[in-house]
Amino acid sequence: MKHLIAPSVLSADFANLQRDIEMVNSSEADWFHVDVMDGVFVPNISFGFPVMEAIKKYAAKPLDVHLMIVSPDQYIERFAAAGASVITVHYEACTHLHRTVQAIHAAGCKAGVAINPHTPVVLLKDILADLDLVLVMSVNPGFGGQKFIPNTLNKVRELKAMASTINPDVIIEVDGGVGIQNLGDLIRAGADAFVAGNAIFGAPSPTAMISELKQLDAQLKSS
Amino acid sequence: MKHLIAPSVLSADFANLQRDIEMVNSSEADWFHVDVMDGVFVPNISFGFPVMEAIKKYAAKPLDVHLMIVSPDQYIERFAAAGASVITVHYEACTHLHRTVQAIHAAGCKAGVAINPHTPVVLLKDILADLDLVLVMSVNPGFGGQKFIPNTLNKVRELKAMASTINPDVIIEVDGGVGIQNLGDLIRAGADAFVAGNAIFGAPSPTAMISELKQLDAQLKSS
Repeated sequence: MKHLIAPSVLSADFANLQRDIEMVNSSEADWFHVDVMDGVFVPNISFGFPVMEAIKKYAAKPLDVHLMIVSPDQYIERFAAAGASVITVHYEACTHLHRTVQAIHAAGCKAGVAINPHTPVVLLKDILADLDLVLVMSVNPGFGGQKFIPNTLNKVRELKAMASTINPDVIIEVDGGVGIQNLGDLIRAGADAFVAGNAIFGAPSPTAMISELKQLDAQLKSS
Repeated sequence: MKHLIAPSVLSADFANLQRDIEMVNSSEADWFHVDVMDGVFVPNISFGFPVMEAIKKYAAKPLDVHLMIVSPDQYIERFAAAGASVITVHYEACTHLHRTVQAIHAAGCKAGVAINPHTPVVLLKDILADLDLVLVMSVNPGFGGQKFIPNTLNKVRELKAMASTINPDVIIEVDGGVGIQNLGDLIRAGADAFVAGNAIFGAPSPTAMISELKQLDAQLKSS
Protein backbone atom coordinates (compact mmCIF):
# COMPACT_ATOMS: atom_id res chain seq x y z
CA MET A 1 0.00 0.00 0.00
CA LYS A 2 1.35 3.36 -1.07
CA HIS A 3 1.14 6.04 1.59
CA LEU A 4 -0.70 9.15 0.54
CA ILE A 5 -0.26 12.83 1.40
CA ALA A 6 -3.38 14.99 1.02
CA PRO A 7 -2.80 18.75 1.51
CA SER A 8 -5.93 20.38 2.91
CA VAL A 9 -7.19 23.24 0.77
CA LEU A 10 -8.71 24.69 3.99
CA SER A 11 -5.25 26.04 4.81
CA ALA A 12 -4.60 27.48 1.33
CA ASP A 13 -4.89 31.16 0.33
CA PHE A 14 -8.52 31.61 -0.72
CA ALA A 15 -7.66 34.85 -2.47
CA ASN A 16 -5.31 32.97 -4.80
CA LEU A 17 -6.49 29.37 -5.01
CA GLN A 18 -5.26 28.80 -8.55
CA ARG A 19 -1.70 29.56 -7.46
CA ASP A 20 -1.87 27.23 -4.43
CA ILE A 21 -3.54 24.46 -6.44
CA GLU A 22 -0.82 24.64 -9.06
CA MET A 23 1.77 24.45 -6.27
CA VAL A 24 0.19 21.19 -5.08
CA ASN A 25 -0.03 19.91 -8.68
CA SER A 26 3.72 20.37 -9.06
CA SER A 27 4.50 18.77 -5.67
CA GLU A 28 4.80 15.13 -4.62
CA ALA A 29 1.36 15.26 -2.95
CA ASP A 30 -1.15 12.57 -3.93
CA TRP A 31 -4.57 14.13 -3.35
CA PHE A 32 -6.29 17.42 -2.60
CA HIS A 33 -8.23 17.20 0.67
CA VAL A 34 -11.39 19.29 0.46
CA ASP A 35 -13.11 20.18 3.77
CA VAL A 36 -16.77 21.13 3.35
CA MET A 37 -18.36 22.52 6.56
CA ASP A 38 -21.96 23.68 6.82
CA GLY A 39 -22.00 25.46 10.18
CA VAL A 40 -24.60 22.96 11.44
CA PHE A 41 -22.77 19.62 11.73
CA VAL A 42 -19.64 21.52 12.78
CA PRO A 43 -19.34 25.01 14.30
CA ASN A 44 -17.76 26.53 11.19
CA ILE A 45 -18.76 27.28 7.59
CA SER A 46 -15.91 26.64 5.15
CA PHE A 47 -16.96 26.37 1.51
CA GLY A 48 -19.05 24.36 -0.92
CA PHE A 49 -19.77 24.12 -4.62
CA PRO A 50 -18.44 27.36 -6.16
CA VAL A 51 -15.08 26.81 -4.46
CA MET A 52 -15.06 23.07 -5.33
CA GLU A 53 -15.63 23.99 -8.96
CA ALA A 54 -12.72 26.41 -8.88
CA ILE A 55 -10.52 23.70 -7.35
CA LYS A 56 -11.63 21.12 -9.93
CA LYS A 57 -10.82 23.51 -12.78
CA TYR A 58 -7.11 23.54 -11.88
CA ALA A 59 -6.47 20.41 -9.81
CA ALA A 60 -4.46 17.71 -11.58
CA LYS A 61 -4.80 15.24 -8.67
CA PRO A 62 -7.85 13.50 -7.16
CA LEU A 63 -10.19 15.48 -4.90
CA ASP A 64 -10.68 13.78 -1.53
CA VAL A 65 -13.87 15.44 -0.27
CA HIS A 66 -14.68 15.40 3.45
CA LEU A 67 -18.30 16.36 4.08
CA MET A 68 -18.77 17.83 7.55
CA ILE A 69 -22.44 18.48 6.87
CA VAL A 70 -25.83 17.25 8.02
CA SER A 71 -27.96 15.26 5.56
CA PRO A 72 -25.14 14.65 3.07
CA ASP A 73 -27.31 12.37 0.90
CA GLN A 74 -28.98 15.28 -0.88
CA TYR A 75 -25.60 16.62 -2.12
CA ILE A 76 -23.71 13.45 -3.11
CA GLU A 77 -24.48 13.63 -6.83
CA ARG A 78 -23.55 17.31 -6.94
CA PHE A 79 -20.22 16.70 -5.20
CA ALA A 80 -19.51 13.89 -7.66
CA ALA A 81 -20.37 16.24 -10.56
CA ALA A 82 -18.15 18.91 -8.97
CA GLY A 83 -15.17 16.59 -9.32
CA ALA A 84 -14.93 14.46 -6.16
CA SER A 85 -12.98 11.20 -6.45
CA VAL A 86 -13.51 10.24 -2.81
CA ILE A 87 -16.57 11.34 -0.83
CA THR A 88 -16.33 10.88 2.93
CA VAL A 89 -19.36 11.34 5.16
CA HIS A 90 -19.50 11.35 8.95
CA TYR A 91 -20.70 8.33 10.88
CA GLU A 92 -22.36 10.77 13.30
CA ALA A 93 -24.30 12.54 10.50
CA CYS A 94 -25.79 9.48 8.79
CA THR A 95 -28.76 7.58 10.18
CA HIS A 96 -28.83 5.37 7.09
CA LEU A 97 -25.10 5.05 6.51
CA HIS A 98 -25.30 1.93 4.34
CA ARG A 99 -27.68 3.71 1.97
CA THR A 100 -25.41 6.76 1.87
CA VAL A 101 -22.36 4.62 1.05
CA GLN A 102 -24.31 2.94 -1.75
CA ALA A 103 -25.27 6.36 -3.11
CA ILE A 104 -21.61 7.46 -3.14
CA HIS A 105 -20.64 4.36 -5.13
CA ALA A 106 -23.60 4.85 -7.46
CA ALA A 107 -22.31 8.37 -8.14
CA GLY A 108 -19.02 6.85 -9.31
CA CYS A 109 -16.89 7.83 -6.30
CA LYS A 110 -14.88 5.99 -3.68
CA ALA A 111 -16.78 5.97 -0.38
CA GLY A 112 -15.31 6.99 2.96
CA VAL A 113 -16.67 7.27 6.48
CA ALA A 114 -15.19 9.66 9.04
CA ILE A 115 -15.36 9.10 12.78
CA ASN A 116 -15.09 11.85 15.39
CA PRO A 117 -12.58 11.50 18.26
CA HIS A 118 -15.27 10.11 20.58
CA THR A 119 -16.65 7.54 18.12
CA PRO A 120 -15.35 3.98 18.68
CA VAL A 121 -13.86 2.16 15.70
CA VAL A 122 -16.00 -0.91 16.47
CA LEU A 123 -19.09 0.99 15.30
CA LEU A 124 -17.78 0.53 11.74
CA LYS A 125 -17.83 -3.28 11.98
CA ASP A 126 -20.87 -3.80 9.74
CA ILE A 127 -20.03 -1.14 7.15
CA LEU A 128 -16.25 -1.60 6.84
CA ALA A 129 -16.53 -4.21 4.06
CA ASP A 130 -18.33 -1.65 1.89
CA LEU A 131 -15.83 1.17 2.34
CA ASP A 132 -12.87 2.37 0.33
CA LEU A 133 -11.65 4.65 3.12
CA VAL A 134 -12.04 5.35 6.82
CA LEU A 135 -11.11 8.83 8.04
CA VAL A 136 -10.07 8.81 11.68
CA MET A 137 -10.43 12.36 12.99
CA SER A 138 -7.46 13.24 15.20
CA VAL A 139 -9.06 16.56 16.22
CA ASN A 140 -12.70 17.61 16.61
CA PRO A 141 -13.64 18.68 13.10
CA GLY A 142 -14.39 22.32 12.35
CA PHE A 143 -11.12 24.20 12.30
CA GLY A 144 -7.59 23.95 10.95
CA GLY A 145 -4.54 24.30 13.15
CA GLN A 146 -5.69 22.12 16.08
CA LYS A 147 -3.57 19.83 18.25
CA PHE A 148 -3.39 16.09 17.50
CA ILE A 149 -5.30 13.87 19.98
CA PRO A 150 -2.88 11.05 21.00
CA ASN A 151 -5.63 8.41 21.44
CA THR A 152 -5.90 8.48 17.64
CA LEU A 153 -2.93 6.08 17.52
CA ASN A 154 -4.90 3.47 19.49
CA LYS A 155 -7.88 3.92 17.20
CA VAL A 156 -5.75 3.48 14.07
CA ARG A 157 -4.21 0.26 15.48
CA GLU A 158 -7.64 -1.09 16.37
CA LEU A 159 -9.04 -0.20 12.95
CA LYS A 160 -6.04 -1.75 11.18
CA ALA A 161 -6.57 -5.01 13.10
CA MET A 162 -10.30 -5.02 12.34
CA ALA A 163 -9.67 -4.26 8.65
CA SER A 164 -7.13 -7.07 8.31
CA THR A 165 -9.94 -9.62 8.38
CA ILE A 166 -12.87 -7.61 6.99
CA ASN A 167 -11.33 -5.31 4.36
CA PRO A 168 -7.52 -5.34 4.13
CA ASP A 169 -7.50 -2.85 1.23
CA VAL A 170 -9.42 -0.09 2.99
CA ILE A 171 -7.45 3.16 3.18
CA ILE A 172 -7.02 4.45 6.74
CA GLU A 173 -6.75 8.24 6.64
CA VAL A 174 -5.94 10.56 9.54
CA ASP A 175 -6.90 14.26 9.69
CA GLY A 176 -6.01 16.89 12.27
CA GLY A 177 -2.70 18.07 13.71
CA VAL A 178 -0.73 15.75 11.42
CA GLY A 179 2.85 16.70 10.58
CA ILE A 180 6.40 15.49 10.44
CA GLN A 181 6.40 15.08 14.26
CA ASN A 182 3.75 12.32 14.36
CA LEU A 183 3.65 10.90 10.82
CA GLY A 184 6.06 8.06 11.65
CA ASP A 185 3.98 6.93 14.62
CA LEU A 186 0.80 7.04 12.53
CA ILE A 187 2.33 4.98 9.71
CA ARG A 188 3.58 2.39 12.21
CA ALA A 189 0.09 2.26 13.74
CA GLY A 190 -1.29 1.37 10.31
CA ALA A 191 -2.47 4.59 8.71
CA ASP A 192 -2.20 4.97 4.93
CA ALA A 193 -3.26 8.52 4.07
CA PHE A 194 -2.52 11.81 5.79
CA VAL A 195 -4.31 15.11 5.62
CA ALA A 196 -2.04 18.05 6.38
CA GLY A 197 -3.10 21.69 6.29
CA ASN A 198 -1.14 24.12 8.39
CA ALA A 199 1.87 21.73 8.44
CA ILE A 200 2.11 22.21 4.66
CA PHE A 201 0.71 25.67 3.90
CA GLY A 202 2.28 27.17 7.03
CA ALA A 203 5.74 25.82 6.14
CA PRO A 204 8.40 28.15 4.67
CA SER A 205 8.29 25.96 1.55
CA PRO A 206 5.08 23.93 1.19
CA THR A 207 6.51 21.80 -1.64
CA ALA A 208 9.62 21.00 0.42
CA MET A 209 7.38 20.03 3.38
CA ILE A 210 5.29 17.76 1.15
CA SER A 211 8.50 16.19 -0.11
CA GLU A 212 9.71 15.71 3.47
CA LEU A 213 6.43 14.04 4.45
CA LYS A 214 6.73 11.71 1.46
CA GLN A 215 10.41 10.92 2.16
CA LEU A 216 9.74 10.00 5.80
CA ASP A 217 7.21 7.67 4.32
CA ALA A 218 9.77 6.04 2.04
CA GLN A 219 12.33 5.70 4.85
CA LEU A 220 9.84 3.90 7.07
CA LYS A 221 8.75 1.58 4.29
CA SER A 222 12.35 0.57 3.50
CA SER A 223 13.28 0.07 7.19
CA MET B 1 -30.32 58.78 -0.98
CA LYS B 2 -27.44 57.56 -3.08
CA HIS B 3 -28.16 54.41 -5.05
CA LEU B 4 -25.77 51.58 -4.42
CA ILE B 5 -24.38 48.84 -6.65
CA ALA B 6 -23.20 45.70 -4.84
CA PRO B 7 -21.43 43.13 -7.07
CA SER B 8 -22.00 39.62 -5.72
CA VAL B 9 -18.79 37.73 -5.04
CA LEU B 10 -20.78 34.53 -5.66
CA SER B 11 -20.31 35.15 -9.40
CA ALA B 12 -16.59 35.93 -9.14
CA ASP B 13 -13.75 33.54 -10.04
CA PHE B 14 -13.02 31.61 -6.83
CA ALA B 15 -9.68 30.49 -8.19
CA ASN B 16 -8.56 34.12 -8.42
CA LEU B 17 -10.54 36.13 -5.88
CA GLN B 18 -7.81 38.69 -5.25
CA ARG B 19 -7.89 39.68 -8.91
CA ASP B 20 -11.69 40.01 -9.00
CA ILE B 21 -11.79 41.89 -5.69
CA GLU B 22 -9.22 44.38 -6.96
CA MET B 23 -11.33 44.82 -10.10
CA VAL B 24 -14.31 45.77 -7.93
CA ASN B 25 -12.10 48.04 -5.79
CA SER B 26 -11.12 49.98 -8.90
CA SER B 27 -14.70 50.17 -10.22
CA GLU B 28 -17.58 52.52 -9.37
CA ALA B 29 -19.26 49.80 -7.26
CA ASP B 30 -20.24 50.72 -3.70
CA TRP B 31 -20.22 47.45 -1.77
CA PHE B 32 -19.19 43.81 -2.03
CA HIS B 33 -22.21 41.53 -1.64
CA VAL B 34 -21.21 38.33 0.16
CA ASP B 35 -23.62 35.37 -0.11
CA VAL B 36 -23.17 32.80 2.66
CA MET B 37 -25.20 29.58 2.12
CA ASP B 38 -25.17 26.62 4.50
CA GLY B 39 -26.91 23.93 2.45
CA VAL B 40 -29.66 23.75 5.12
CA PHE B 41 -31.55 27.06 4.90
CA VAL B 42 -31.00 27.02 1.13
CA PRO B 43 -30.27 24.05 -1.16
CA ASN B 44 -26.69 25.12 -1.85
CA ILE B 45 -23.42 25.52 0.07
CA SER B 46 -21.45 28.59 -1.04
CA PHE B 47 -18.73 29.70 1.37
CA GLY B 48 -18.12 30.97 4.89
CA PHE B 49 -15.29 32.27 7.04
CA PRO B 50 -12.06 31.32 5.22
CA VAL B 51 -13.37 32.90 2.01
CA MET B 52 -14.76 35.96 3.90
CA GLU B 53 -11.33 36.48 5.42
CA ALA B 54 -9.70 36.34 2.00
CA ILE B 55 -12.24 38.91 0.70
CA LYS B 56 -11.69 41.18 3.71
CA LYS B 57 -7.93 41.11 3.19
CA TYR B 58 -8.22 42.80 -0.22
CA ALA B 59 -11.61 44.54 -0.28
CA ALA B 60 -11.46 48.33 -0.10
CA LYS B 61 -15.26 48.72 0.05
CA PRO B 62 -17.82 47.62 2.67
CA LEU B 63 -18.83 43.96 2.88
CA ASP B 64 -22.59 43.50 2.65
CA VAL B 65 -23.06 40.01 4.08
CA HIS B 66 -26.23 38.06 3.30
CA LEU B 67 -26.61 35.06 5.61
CA MET B 68 -28.68 32.30 4.01
CA ILE B 69 -28.17 30.06 7.02
CA VAL B 70 -30.20 28.57 9.85
CA SER B 71 -29.52 29.82 13.39
CA PRO B 72 -27.51 32.87 12.32
CA ASP B 73 -27.24 34.16 15.91
CA GLN B 74 -24.34 31.89 16.77
CA TYR B 75 -22.20 33.34 13.95
CA ILE B 76 -22.94 37.08 14.10
CA GLU B 77 -19.88 38.05 16.12
CA ARG B 78 -17.63 35.97 13.89
CA PHE B 79 -19.02 37.57 10.72
CA ALA B 80 -18.49 40.99 12.27
CA ALA B 81 -14.90 40.03 13.14
CA ALA B 82 -14.46 38.71 9.60
CA GLY B 83 -15.13 42.20 8.25
CA ALA B 84 -18.88 42.55 7.69
CA SER B 85 -20.27 46.11 7.55
CA VAL B 86 -23.85 45.00 6.96
CA ILE B 87 -25.20 41.66 8.22
CA THR B 88 -28.52 40.57 6.72
CA VAL B 89 -30.42 37.61 8.13
CA HIS B 90 -33.54 35.97 6.75
CA TYR B 91 -36.97 36.66 8.23
CA GLU B 92 -37.76 32.98 7.60
CA ALA B 93 -34.70 31.77 9.58
CA CYS B 94 -35.17 33.84 12.75
CA THR B 95 -37.71 32.95 15.41
CA HIS B 96 -36.43 35.77 17.61
CA LEU B 97 -35.72 38.34 14.92
CA HIS B 98 -35.70 41.36 17.24
CA ARG B 99 -33.02 39.73 19.39
CA THR B 100 -30.98 38.85 16.30
CA VAL B 101 -31.17 42.45 15.02
CA GLN B 102 -30.04 43.72 18.42
CA ALA B 103 -27.10 41.29 18.32
CA ILE B 104 -26.05 42.56 14.88
CA HIS B 105 -26.06 46.14 16.14
CA ALA B 106 -24.20 45.10 19.31
CA ALA B 107 -21.53 43.58 17.06
CA GLY B 108 -21.05 47.01 15.44
CA CYS B 109 -22.72 46.27 12.10
CA LYS B 110 -25.67 47.62 10.17
CA ALA B 111 -28.61 45.21 10.44
CA GLY B 112 -30.60 43.91 7.49
CA VAL B 113 -33.50 41.50 7.10
CA ALA B 114 -34.09 39.56 3.88
CA ILE B 115 -37.49 38.32 2.76
CA ASN B 116 -38.06 35.42 0.37
CA PRO B 117 -40.33 35.90 -2.67
CA HIS B 118 -43.32 34.42 -0.81
CA THR B 119 -42.89 36.50 2.36
CA PRO B 120 -45.21 39.56 2.54
CA VAL B 121 -43.63 42.93 3.26
CA VAL B 122 -46.21 43.61 5.99
CA LEU B 123 -44.53 41.00 8.21
CA LEU B 124 -41.72 43.51 8.71
CA LYS B 125 -44.06 46.12 10.24
CA ASP B 126 -42.86 45.71 13.84
CA ILE B 127 -39.15 45.35 13.07
CA LEU B 128 -38.73 47.93 10.30
CA ALA B 129 -37.95 50.79 12.69
CA ASP B 130 -34.93 48.85 13.98
CA LEU B 131 -33.44 48.05 10.58
CA ASP B 132 -30.78 49.69 8.45
CA LEU B 133 -31.66 47.60 5.40
CA VAL B 134 -34.34 45.33 3.97
CA LEU B 135 -33.29 42.87 1.29
CA VAL B 136 -36.16 41.96 -1.02
CA MET B 137 -35.28 38.67 -2.70
CA SER B 138 -36.26 38.80 -6.37
CA VAL B 139 -35.41 35.09 -6.84
CA ASN B 140 -35.55 32.14 -4.47
CA PRO B 141 -32.18 32.28 -2.73
CA GLY B 142 -29.61 29.56 -3.33
CA PHE B 143 -28.15 30.07 -6.79
CA GLY B 144 -26.79 32.78 -9.04
CA GLY B 145 -28.05 33.34 -12.57
CA GLN B 146 -31.80 33.05 -11.87
CA LYS B 147 -34.64 34.99 -13.52
CA PHE B 148 -36.09 38.08 -11.81
CA ILE B 149 -39.59 37.58 -10.31
CA PRO B 150 -41.75 40.54 -11.53
CA ASN B 151 -43.89 40.70 -8.35
CA THR B 152 -40.77 42.08 -6.65
CA LEU B 153 -41.69 45.51 -8.05
CA ASN B 154 -44.99 45.45 -6.13
CA LYS B 155 -43.19 44.41 -2.97
CA VAL B 156 -40.64 47.22 -3.29
CA ARG B 157 -43.43 49.78 -3.79
CA GLU B 158 -45.30 48.47 -0.76
CA LEU B 159 -42.15 48.46 1.37
CA LYS B 160 -41.23 52.00 0.25
CA ALA B 161 -44.69 53.23 1.28
CA MET B 162 -44.49 51.46 4.65
CA ALA B 163 -40.96 52.78 5.28
CA SER B 164 -41.99 56.38 4.50
CA THR B 165 -43.80 56.60 7.83
CA ILE B 166 -41.85 54.07 9.95
CA ASN B 167 -38.23 54.39 8.78
CA PRO B 168 -37.63 56.64 5.76
CA ASP B 169 -33.85 56.07 5.87
CA VAL B 170 -33.96 52.29 5.59
CA ILE B 171 -32.07 50.99 2.55
CA ILE B 172 -34.22 48.84 0.25
CA GLU B 173 -31.98 46.31 -1.50
CA VAL B 174 -32.95 43.90 -4.28
CA ASP B 175 -31.12 40.66 -5.08
CA GLY B 176 -31.66 38.21 -7.93
CA GLY B 177 -31.80 38.63 -11.69
CA VAL B 178 -31.01 42.35 -11.44
CA GLY B 179 -29.39 44.02 -14.43
CA ILE B 180 -29.54 46.95 -16.80
CA GLN B 181 -32.90 45.68 -18.14
CA ASN B 182 -34.83 46.12 -14.86
CA LEU B 183 -32.74 48.53 -12.79
CA GLY B 184 -34.75 51.58 -13.90
CA ASP B 185 -38.06 49.97 -12.91
CA LEU B 186 -36.63 48.98 -9.53
CA ILE B 187 -35.31 52.47 -8.81
CA ARG B 188 -38.66 54.01 -9.75
CA ALA B 189 -40.38 51.49 -7.43
CA GLY B 190 -38.25 52.78 -4.58
CA ALA B 191 -35.24 50.47 -4.31
CA ASP B 192 -31.90 51.92 -3.19
CA ALA B 193 -29.32 49.14 -3.46
CA PHE B 194 -28.80 46.50 -6.11
CA VAL B 195 -27.00 43.19 -5.95
CA ALA B 196 -25.73 42.03 -9.32
CA GLY B 197 -23.73 38.88 -9.92
CA ASN B 198 -23.87 37.37 -13.38
CA ALA B 199 -24.91 40.74 -14.87
CA ILE B 200 -21.52 42.09 -13.76
CA PHE B 201 -19.09 39.16 -13.76
CA GLY B 202 -20.66 37.67 -16.90
CA ALA B 203 -20.30 40.94 -18.82
CA PRO B 204 -17.49 41.37 -21.40
CA SER B 205 -16.18 44.17 -19.16
CA PRO B 206 -17.38 43.96 -15.55
CA THR B 207 -16.09 47.46 -14.71
CA ALA B 208 -17.88 48.93 -17.75
CA MET B 209 -21.10 47.16 -16.70
CA ILE B 210 -20.78 48.52 -13.14
CA SER B 211 -20.27 51.97 -14.63
CA GLU B 212 -23.33 51.53 -16.85
CA LEU B 213 -25.43 50.47 -13.83
CA LYS B 214 -24.26 53.55 -11.93
CA GLN B 215 -24.87 55.88 -14.89
CA LEU B 216 -28.43 54.65 -15.41
CA ASP B 217 -28.80 55.52 -11.78
CA ALA B 218 -27.56 59.06 -12.33
CA GLN B 219 -29.76 59.57 -15.39
CA LEU B 220 -32.87 58.55 -13.47
CA LYS B 221 -32.00 60.76 -10.53
CA SER B 222 -31.54 63.80 -12.77
CA SER B 223 -34.73 63.13 -14.76
